[in-house]
Order: sequence, then C-alpha cells, then structure tokens
Amino acid sequence: MNKIAHVGIAVKDLDAALALFRDVLGLHVEYRRVVPDQGVEIVGLPVGESEIELLRPLSETSGVAKFLEKRGEGIHHICFEVDDVEAALRNLEARGYELIDKTPRIGSDGRRLAFVHPRSTHGVLIEFYEKK
Amino acid sequence: MNKIAHVGIAVKDLDAALALFRDVLGLHVEYRRVVPDQGVEIVGLPVGESEIELLRPLSETSGVAKFLEKRGEGIHHICFEVDDVEAALRNLEARGYELIDKTPRIGSDGRRLAFVHPRSTHGVLIEFYEKK
Repeated sequence: MNKIAHVGIAVKDLDAALALFRDVLGLHVEYRRVVPDQGVEIVGLPVGESEIELLRPLSETSGVAKFLEKRGEGIHHICFEVDDVEAALRNLEARGYELIDKTPRIGSDGRRLAFVHPRSTHGVLIEFYEKK
Repeated sequence: MNKIAHVGIAVKDLDAALALFRDVLGLHVEYRRVVPDQGVEIVGLPVGESEIELLRPLSETSGVAKFLEKRGEGIHHICFEVDDVEAALRNLEARGYELIDKTPRIGSDGRRLAFVHPRSTHGVLIEFYEKK
C-alpha cells in the first residue's frame, strides 16, 4: 500500500460540510461530481498527498444513506492507493476476508477500485484504489 | 493543515488487528506504546506520509472503550498535522466550534495536540498534531 488516497466522510449536506473543511480548515475543492453507480455526490479536498472525500447520498437506498441512518454523519471509509487492486483482492480473499467487490470496478476517473467488507476488517470499510 | 498525520482505528485486540494491517496488508509497526493519560495502548503503522494508529482501551472508562461499546470497532478519529495547534484551536473556537481541549496537551512524544468535539464537526472526531 503506497499511501492513504483519501478518507471518506458521510454527510447530509455538502455545503454545510464545506463550511467547515473548506472555509474554516482552509482546504480547497479539487473536484465535485455525481457518481451515480455509487449513489453519491462527492467533493474532493486535497491535504498533503491524500484527500478528504465528502460523500452525500443521492437516494435513500444508497450505502451512504444507510450509513447515515444507522450511525449519523462521520468517517465512512479509508481508501489506500495500491499498485494492483486485483492482487490486493486476491491476497485478502485467499486469507478468508470478505470482499464487497470480488473483481475491481472502474471509478469515475477510469482507475480500478474495490471495497472490502468491514465485517471482516475490524469495522473498517477499506477501499483500494489503483495508482495513477 | 499540512497532511493527514494519522487515522485512528479503535479495536478490541491489537494483535488481532495487526494480523490484518501488518501481516496481510503489509504495513510495518513503527511503535507500540501505552499512553495512560489518553487511556489507550497504541500501535503506529506508517503508510506514505501518514500512519494508521490502532487504539486499544486500557480501561472501561476510557473514551475509546465507550466508542467500542456504542459503535463497535472501526475508524475512531482523523488527525491533521498543523504548524500551530494553538492557532487552529483559536480559529475554530472563534467560529463557535466545540473543543475537547481548549488548550493543547502534550503528547507522549512531546509534541502539542488537541481534539475537537465531533458534535460540531459532522460526526468527525478531529485531532490536530503539531509539526515535528
């Protein structure tokens, strides 16, 4: 694993969250986009080599909406940049970890990504993201 | 804010968590130490310019123990490295954010740190850590 690519934070209202992370804490918005296949609108704010990724659910059935309903706003997942998402998945699978994505999906920027289920990883929703 | 200093993960058993983060995901243990005034034993595993910080409560009354009881294992807080912890606290206080530490405390390595209450920061427990 090369670095923390981003830390995802589930929020109800992106603009309210930007009032903290952009206006008070001084981060800048690198991008803001709707990702329909993940059911979210996301805002990326770089900090060092990583990003804060604010996530707002697009519908009540999205995973982020269920997270908000169950736990309220807060840190949702951590994403690590890896050289090879496929190899990372096979490594975990061989040791009995439960994958959400058995094969990588393609992200909105064309890079491969995959999620591991928090049930088998100490409650931590882990995402792998392919190196640029 | 310069970078993500670390992401803190609350766990019940450090060795069980190391079986994932060290043995499977390949991170190395930089340090392992007991921090009595925070009521935790911590293990630091660098990844890029940041660290994963595994936290185990030392007693049932520690903040991390309460977190585990309420929410189970999972991501507990995010720590940003800043040049000046005192200035970061005054900035948030002036805008009405609720601080856990109104003045910085001194960490186990002698650097200043402080926590901001998640009630006013979209459910995110934020820590500031002074630059080395």
